[in-house]
Amino acid sequence: MKTALAALGSALFLFTAVRADEGMWTFDNPPTKQLQEKYNFTLTTQWLDHVRLASVRLNDGGSGSFVSPNGLLLTNHHVARGQLQKNSTAEHDYMKTGFLAQTSAEEMKSPDLEVNVLVSMENVTQKVQDGLKGAKSAEEEFAKRKDVIAAIERESLEKTGFRSDVVTLYQGGEYWLYRYKKYTDVRIVFAPEQQIAFYGGDPDNFTYPRYDLDMALFRVYENGQPIKSDNYLKWNPQGVGDGDLTFVSGHPGSTSRLDTLAQLEAERDVVEPATLKIIKNRLDSLRKYSAQSPEAARQAGTTIFGLENSQKAYLGRLKGLQDAAVMGAKKKDEDAFKAKVNSNPQWKAAYGKAWDQIAAAEKKGQTRFKEQYFHGLYSSYSGLAQQIVQYVTEIKKPDGQRLGGYHESQLESLKQQLFSPAPLYPEMEIPRITGALELDLAEAGPNDPWVKLVMGGKSPKEVAEALVKGTKLGDAEYRKKLIEGGESAVAASDDTMIVLARKLDPIRRELVKWQEDNVDSVVQRAGEMLGKARFAAFGKTTFPDATFTLRLSYGKVASYPMNGTIAPPVTTFHGLYDRNASFTNKAPFDLPQRWIDGKSKLDLTTPINFVTTNDIIGGNSGSPVVNAAGEIVGLIFDGNIESLVGDFVYEGSANRAVAVHTAGMTEALRKLYGADKIVNELLTGIR
Amino acid sequence: MKTALAALGSALFLFTAVRADEGMWTFDNPPTKQLQEKYNFTLTTQWLDHVRLASVRLNDGGSGSFVSPNGLLLTNHHVARGQLQKNSTAEHDYMKTGFLAQTSAEEMKSPDLEVNVLVSMENVTQKVQDGLKGAKSAEEEFAKRKDVIAAIERESLEKTGFRSDVVTLYQGGEYWLYRYKKYTDVRIVFAPEQQIAFYGGDPDNFTYPRYDLDMALFRVYENGQPIKSDNYLKWNPQGVGDGDLTFVSGHPGSTSRLDTLAQLEAERDVVEPATLKIIKNRLDSLRKYSAQSPEAARQAGTTIFGLENSQKAYLGRLKGLQDAAVMGAKKKDEDAFKAKVNSNPQWKAAYGKAWDQIAAAEKKGQTRFKEQYFHGLYSSYSGLAQQIVQYVTEIKKPDGQRLGGYHESQLESLKQQLFSPAPLYPEMEIPRITGALELDLAEAGPNDPWVKLVMGGKSPKEVAEALVKGTKLGDAEYRKKLIEGGESAVAASDDTMIVLARKLDPIRRELVKWQEDNVDSVVQRAGEMLGKARFAAFGKTTFPDATFTLRLSYGKVASYPMNGTIAPPVTTFHGLYDRNASFTNKAPFDLPQRWIDGKSKLDLTTPINFVTTNDIIGGNSGSPVVNAAGEIVGLIFDGNIESLVGDFVYEGSANRAVAVHTAGMTEALRKLYGADKIVNELLTGIR
Repeated sequence: MKTALAALGSALFLFTAVRADEGMWTFDNPPTKQLQEKYNFTLTTQWLDHVRLASVRLNDGGSGSFVSPNGLLLTNHHVARGQLQKNSTAEHDYMKTGFLAQTSAEEMKSPDLEVNVLVSMENVTQKVQDGLKGAKSAEEEFAKRKDVIAAIERESLEKTGFRSDVVTLYQGGEYWLYRYKKYTDVRIVFAPEQQIAFYGGDPDNFTYPRYDLDMALFRVYENGQPIKSDNYLKWNPQGVGDGDLTFVSGHPGSTSRLDTLAQLEAERDVVEPATLKIIKNRLDSLRKYSAQSPEAARQAGTTIFGLENSQKAYLGRLKGLQDAAVMGAKKKDEDAFKAKVNSNPQWKAAYGKAWDQIAAAEKKGQTRFKEQYFHGLYSSYSGLAQQIVQYVTEIKKPDGQRLGGYHESQLESLKQQLFSPAPLYPEMEIPRITGALELDLAEAGPNDPWVKLVMGGKSPKEVAEALVKGTKLGDAEYRKKLIEGGESAVAASDDTMIVLARKLDPIRRELVKWQEDNVDSVVQRAGEMLGKARFAAFGKTTFPDATFTLRLSYGKVASYPMNGTIAPPVTTFHGLYDRNASFTNKAPFDLPQRWIDGKSKLDLTTPINFVTTNDIIGGNSGSPVVNAAGEIVGLIFDGNIESLVGDFVYEGSANRAVAVHTAGMTEALRKLYGADKIVNELLTGIR
Repeated sequence: MKTALAALGSALFLFTAVRADEGMWTFDNPPTKQLQEKYNFTLTTQWLDHVRLASVRLNDGGSGSFVSPNGLLLTNHHVARGQLQKNSTAEHDYMKTGFLAQTSAEEMKSPDLEVNVLVSMENVTQKVQDGLKGAKSAEEEFAKRKDVIAAIERESLEKTGFRSDVVTLYQGGEYWLYRYKKYTDVRIVFAPEQQIAFYGGDPDNFTYPRYDLDMALFRVYENGQPIKSDNYLKWNPQGVGDGDLTFVSGHPGSTSRLDTLAQLEAERDVVEPATLKIIKNRLDSLRKYSAQSPEAARQAGTTIFGLENSQKAYLGRLKGLQDAAVMGAKKKDEDAFKAKVNSNPQWKAAYGKAWDQIAAAEKKGQTRFKEQYFHGLYSSYSGLAQQIVQYVTEIKKPDGQRLGGYHESQLESLKQQLFSPAPLYPEMEIPRITGALELDLAEAGPNDPWVKLVMGGKSPKEVAEALVKGTKLGDAEYRKKLIEGGESAVAASDDTMIVLARKLDPIRRELVKWQEDNVDSVVQRAGEMLGKARFAAFGKTTFPDATFTLRLSYGKVASYPMNGTIAPPVTTFHGLYDRNASFTNKAPFDLPQRWIDGKSKLDLTTPINFVTTNDIIGGNSGSPVVNAAGEIVGLIFDGNIESLVGDFVYEGSANRAVAVHTAGMTEALRKLYGADKIVNELLTGIR
């Protein structure tokens, strides 16, 4: 609740005094004042630029940073895991064995990884607002907004060649044009065994104390050569200790701290329960499949991993939303914000209706939420089929009128995904589709038009088997041919998945349109009003909700109250071997053989993980932890269980970011993995 | 809530099926059926007798067990701590250095430790109930009950020579005569440093994972020789692992699981808050004193330790009582019990009014609770003075009419305390008394008769200084002289503490009498009714509340859900060194030098602590953990934070007993303490 609190005039004075290190600050509005007052640290433009240009976003949904002048890129194993698995086969399972390239030639290409570096930011709020003039309804405004944003992005792409995204901040209080330098030749250099990267498995996920070597190293190439750049973070092998100032520069995915109470209630009552139901359905299917053979387990591993991760996160979020204290505080904050707005006749007229409008739109949205949530085949094939069918139609339209995902500036990234050579597993698709259809049937009922069309009177399993049997979409070349062949090729295709996608397309489009006209457009317009109201009332004293764009957070290494005692600020290798011995090496507390055999080589008092008060959220995975000198001292890989409610509230007394310690990474690379060349490059910059 | 649940007819069927390993069972009514059904373990009389006779109660408030045929007695360091400190001086601080007697001659006498072994049990319910016949009021019944109990105890003592206590079980549903063999020559053999015995200090107290070597060894002598006996537990140096069946045989102090809702509400609203206020007051005084010098810190150490321990425990209990779910379930259980009683006209007539009577008595008691709780000087001197003044009067009365604590059967133990040569510290008494009087003043007000009398118009500090200056009670010889001189010697004494105790005596007696007549007698009579009602409705299918008498609990080594993950079933030395390194050896996570220097000698994967589902409570400290073969495999020293509500409810999913592992004790004794002779005695029985 502290963001909202901080947004209140009456509470503003308390801001720097009482609240903890909250904030995912944009680089145009960094917490300079707080850092000076609280940590006696002077933030310079030079420091900010250096850290920004060394920070990267990965399209697999995480963050990372450059850690050598030769394009070495550090991120989490769990962010790299998709690429590792795509390079794995039944014979070479890099998830199990880990991977190390001792030479450039051994570095493995990532099939579809894209790396973005934020090279410039431009405030385009005025431009967007100007573009909305003359709109007579929320619907019309929605269309105009899409137009003007697409135009800004297209113009920027044409002018600069950079990936150009218009980002909505403060619920529409501001619009910014972010330009990214994009890299697509990204090769895998090092990854440890999944077993040590994700030590403790699902039980220890989102918890602390923790003992994970959740790291991976890539190298970024351009024109067939490793990039050369001074924009990297110097490796500090000593890392940090209790009380040290820490920064995190990364890409938090999404938060809802500025959402209205009505929106949080919709989350609590509709969205999260439905999401959890879907996750459970997906997990059930995959676990059953996974149990069939070791190869099936390998194929499904990454997806199960992701689903378990989501399940735990959503359970934590839901628990937070169900906490009467959390919602009570939110209500209090909102009431005070409303009162402030209503106390000024001008503000009241301009913004006063926003809360009710959002509440009404949320309510309307719920009338069709089952279609929104449960219609889906949960198949890689059907996802590709839908994209192909839509692609060939959408690119014929003016940019501003296209569906989201098909704008000019997004096409290159989309094609990288569509043409990815990563393997798909037909045997696995069958249970996935079967399970999803069973859920569709149960939730939407057999008379639902979508269900009727997909099922055609057959059983979920029959449908799934027929669909998978009749598709060639597993072949990247065939997908390419369809895209290149355009509308006529797609219309002529007798591929089962394409045929179904063609039939479903009108249903999907109708739902998207309905959602835009009745919910999104209203919420966006009202959100913009609240964004303006917030600026009017309080100025730009706070940070916007997370949007998977670059943010800076500050904080310090710090213990916290936990289960009656205090959690340690750092953990050591001793703790890893304690957990291993106390569970007698049973999974998920077993260790790779390398770690069992190599124990005596390690200094067991070396820190492996640590916790900081930095405000982070999913998407920050792989973000560097940076010290005051701008050096890298750690690698964010998780938040503790107390941080899960952070989507809605930052509660500084126990909310902690969990990171891998550079001392532990250095020790393991050197003593257990024989990666002396990498350590040397990290320490000296010399390859 | 599960005890109460189990007491309900409708829930009885669920009993063995759903509920966890609850129960502090008396040895006359052991959980034979549950053990057979749940653990396939056949409990024999021989097994029970052996374990009972190897178990001991310590008058310092803990439990212990014989672990060799030569009287070697194992308990917790924190139980032995009072005796260790009484043997310590500014020069020899055994709390800091630990202690090891390599020879019999080096073993140190405990100034005032008494050890009890339960040698026989006799059901005297009928005798007590017969003795109450003809009583016309609760008051009269109360007096008659005291009479008949004192008579039974006296008769048994005379006949057998054993310490004889009548124990009230099931709130008076049963009365049992327990006879104890008593030992008073108890010598200290081994204790580690306080730092490792209580590793993690107050933060880690009542929590888990834990890394404490909370052990001490005494040797019990009789007629100047170590006792020889086969009633000892064989030392199993391998200990136990996950899932193993475990028994705990010890003396849980007190629980309130059969209390009525009205009693729990009184606890929640009056008793616990007042107790916490008093603990805080005592702690404040002692911490201030302690800060003056290392010697002051040493003197106050044990008491501060105990107070911090109580504070954390009471906070946990209060939190449990304030949990709406806990109280709601309690209410539901009580309503169902009431309904069952009221459904039978005979039961309704005999027992139906008990709940209201207890509620009314609790309410009445609260009218004078400030006198009950806050009148006190918190001084060792004033405690002794009060006992001396009362003693000389009481022993002249018939046994049945004496105040509690002065019955014939209690006198020997009382004298051991009164004449203990343990040192008292006058410098420390002054701040203790000053602080206590400040609280008395604040709570009872300056016009309260007790306050007026004690203060005499002076300030708390002036009163304290004058009292301490004018007393000779620090001298055990002087105390002996007063006791031996009887009423005339006490009446003639001009010792400031004795003079004050004489003046306060009538006020105290009036309050005790009022409490007995208005509260205790009513609660006791009504409690007895409920005890009978429970037997009538359900038979003897459950166990009575704890009464600091011998109980057997069963369970198993088991992990539990903790803070988002699972707690390990055992911890290892690796974990100790992890916590030490992660807090960079800062107190209270620092290690004794011996442990820092000796790390390489240890097998770090050796278990040090473990958790079991056994149902325990304060008083169980020092209890042996026994395996199916009747061997000792661990040493109870704490409950986890989730167990604190166990006073009122046993919640099996996370309630855990925390114990020291025999493997860890063996490893440390041998490799770090040079106690090979002790280990040899433990393993072979040969000294």
